[in-house]
Amino acid sequence: MPEFSIGVDLGGTNLRAAAIDRAGKMITKVRRTTVLTKGPDSVVSDIAAGIREVQRKVKDHSLVGVGIGSAGFMDMEKGVIRGSPNLPIFEDYPIRDEVSRRLGLPVILENDANAAALGEKWMGAGKNYDDLVLLTLGTGIGGGIIVKGKILHGFVGMAAEVGHITVDPSGNPCGCGNNGCLEKHASATAVVCMAKLMGLGEVSAEDVYHLAKQGDEKAREVWRHMGKHLGVGLAALANIFNCPLYLLSGGLLPAWDYFTPAMFEELKRRSFIFRSTPSRVEKALLGSEAGLYGAAYLPFQEQG
Amino acid sequence: MPEFSIGVDLGGTNLRAAAIDRAGKMITKVRRTTVLTKGPDSVVSDIAAGIREVQRKVKDHSLVGVGIGSAGFMDMEKGVIRGSPNLPIFEDYPIRDEVSRRLGLPVILENDANAAALGEKWMGAGKNYDDLVLLTLGTGIGGGIIVKGKILHGFVGMAAEVGHITVDPSGNPCGCGNNGCLEKHASATAVVCMAKLMGLGEVSAEDVYHLAKQGDEKAREVWRHMGKHLGVGLAALANIFNCPLYLLSGGLLPAWDYFTPAMFEELKRRSFIFRSTPSRVEKALLGSEAGLYGAAYLPFQEQG
Repeated sequence: MPEFSIGVDLGGTNLRAAAIDRAGKMITKVRRTTVLTKGPDSVVSDIAAGIREVQRKVKDHSLVGVGIGSAGFMDMEKGVIRGSPNLPIFEDYPIRDEVSRRLGLPVILENDANAAALGEKWMGAGKNYDDLVLLTLGTGIGGGIIVKGKILHGFVGMAAEVGHITVDPSGNPCGCGNNGCLEKHASATAVVCMAKLMGLGEVSAEDVYHLAKQGDEKAREVWRHMGKHLGVGLAALANIFNCPLYLLSGGLLPAWDYFTPAMFEELKRRSFIFRSTPSRVEKALLGSEAGLYGAAYLPFQEQG
Repeated sequence: MPEFSIGVDLGGTNLRAAAIDRAGKMITKVRRTTVLTKGPDSVVSDIAAGIREVQRKVKDHSLVGVGIGSAGFMDMEKGVIRGSPNLPIFEDYPIRDEVSRRLGLPVILENDANAAALGEKWMGAGKNYDDLVLLTLGTGIGGGIIVKGKILHGFVGMAAEVGHITVDPSGNPCGCGNNGCLEKHASATAVVCMAKLMGLGEVSAEDVYHLAKQGDEKAREVWRHMGKHLGVGLAALANIFNCPLYLLSGGLLPAWDYFTPAMFEELKRRSFIFRSTPSRVEKALLGSEAGLYGAAYLPFQEQG
C-alpha cells in the first residue's frame, strides 16, 4: 500500500492540514479555525480533528506520521513551542506528545520557516539541492537553512534567526534589543515605515509596490533601500554557507523587480564567495504551501 | 594493532606532519621547510618525505590515512587547492592525488581553518560538542564551522568565510571588493592600523596589547573597538547557528581581557539567541596544533 504523511501548519487563527504522498503529491487539504481563547487542550482537539478529517479522506494509503509546523522556537527534545507571538498559550504545553497521544501517531514538531525551507527543498524551487537558505519576507523576516538535506537546528532549536542579523550597526531599533536587524530594514513592516518617512503616507507594502510600478520615484527608492539591506544580509549568509541556492518567499515577492537590482549589487560586492561560485537567489515556488510540504516531509525523512 | 593517522599542516614556508592515534594522542611530529620556488612536484616530494619520516617513527600501529590542511579553498571533488595566497603554485595542481599516489595512501585535503575547528572539536576546547564555530584572529580572520560533528563545506568548499561578513556597511575597504569586512576591523592587521590612526605609531598588535596592559588609554580604545566589531560578527553567527560554543584562536588571544568586554556587550545586545541560550565564547586550546589534530582526525572520521 502506498504511504502518505500529514503536514499541519498551525497558526494563531487557522490551522491547515494536508495529506501528501511519498512522491510529494498533495492528496487532500483541510482548513480549520483555531480558537486560542478556549485554551491549549481545546486547540489540540481541533488539531486532532483536522488530522482525522484528512486521514478519512485518504483511501488505500498507510499513514507514516504527522509533522506540525508553527511559528516560535521548537524545543525539539521536549516537543514544546516556545516564544511564539501567535501561540502564547502553548508555552510549556507538551503539544507534540498531546497530539501524538490523542491520535496514536508519531508527531514531529518544527518551526514554520524551517518547514517551509524543507518543503521548497523537497518539492519546490530547491528540488535537487541539498543545501539552501530560505528567507521569508513578511511582517518580519524568518529563515530556514538546509544543510546536507536536513534542517539546521542549532543546539536548542533556535538557529536560522536570519531576520536578526545586523545589517546596519547604527540602524533602526528592534524589539529583540538590537538595532539594525535585517527585518527592521527589509521586511514589509520596514517598507511601510520607509514609505511613511519618504512622505508617501499610511500605505501598505503592496501599495508601495503598486506605486513603484506606476513609476513613483519615492516608492522605487524605498525598494532600492530595502534591496540594499537584504543584499547585506544575504552576503553574510553567502560568506558563511556558500550555498548554491538562496530562496526568497513571502508577501514582498511581487516587488522582486524593484528590490533585486540593489540586492544583487550589494550581495555581489559584499560576497566574493557568491560572485565567484555559481550561486543563485531565486523566488521560492510553493508560497504558503511550502510549510505544509515541509511538515509532511518530516516523517518521511525520519523514516529514511 | 592500534591505529594512527597522519595530519599535515602545509604552509608557505614550512610543513608540519604529526602521527596521532585514534584516542587523540600525538605520537610524534616533524617539521620541514617547503621551498615553493622549486615547483609543486618538488614540494609534493617534501610532503611525502615528511609523511614517511613520521611513519617510520611509529612502531606497532597501522596507518589509516593522511589528512592535509592548508590555506586556500579546497576543491573537495578534485583534490585541488585554489586561491591560496601562500601556495599559488598549487592552483590547478592535483596535489591530493599526487601525494596519495607517491605514498600509496588515502589522502584528504582540507582548509586549515576548517581543520583547526575540527581539531578543537576532537581534542581541544570543543571536546564533547557537536556544533561549534572557530574564528582565527590573525593577520586576517579565518573560520571553521562544525555542524553535527562535521565540517560545513558549502557546495564548492568555500563556506565559513567569516572574516568577510560585513560588520560595518560603511567600514574599511577590503581587497575582496567589499568594505566593512570583519577582518578589516578585528584582525591583527586592523589593530595595527587603528593604533596608527590613534597616534601610537608603527606598532605591532603585540605592542598594542602590551601598551593596553600598561594602562595606555589609546591602546585600550583600540581593543574595545576591535572587540565591538568582533561582537557584531559573532552575533550574526549566533543568530544563524545557535551553537553552544564559539571559539577564538590566533595571535590576538593574549589581548582577551581587553577586547572581550566590548565583544560580549555587543554580542549579547545583538543576539537574543546568544543571550537566551547557554552559549559561550571561549579560547581555543590547541593553538597552532589544532590544524594538525583536525587533519589527522579526517581519516578516522571518514572511516567512521
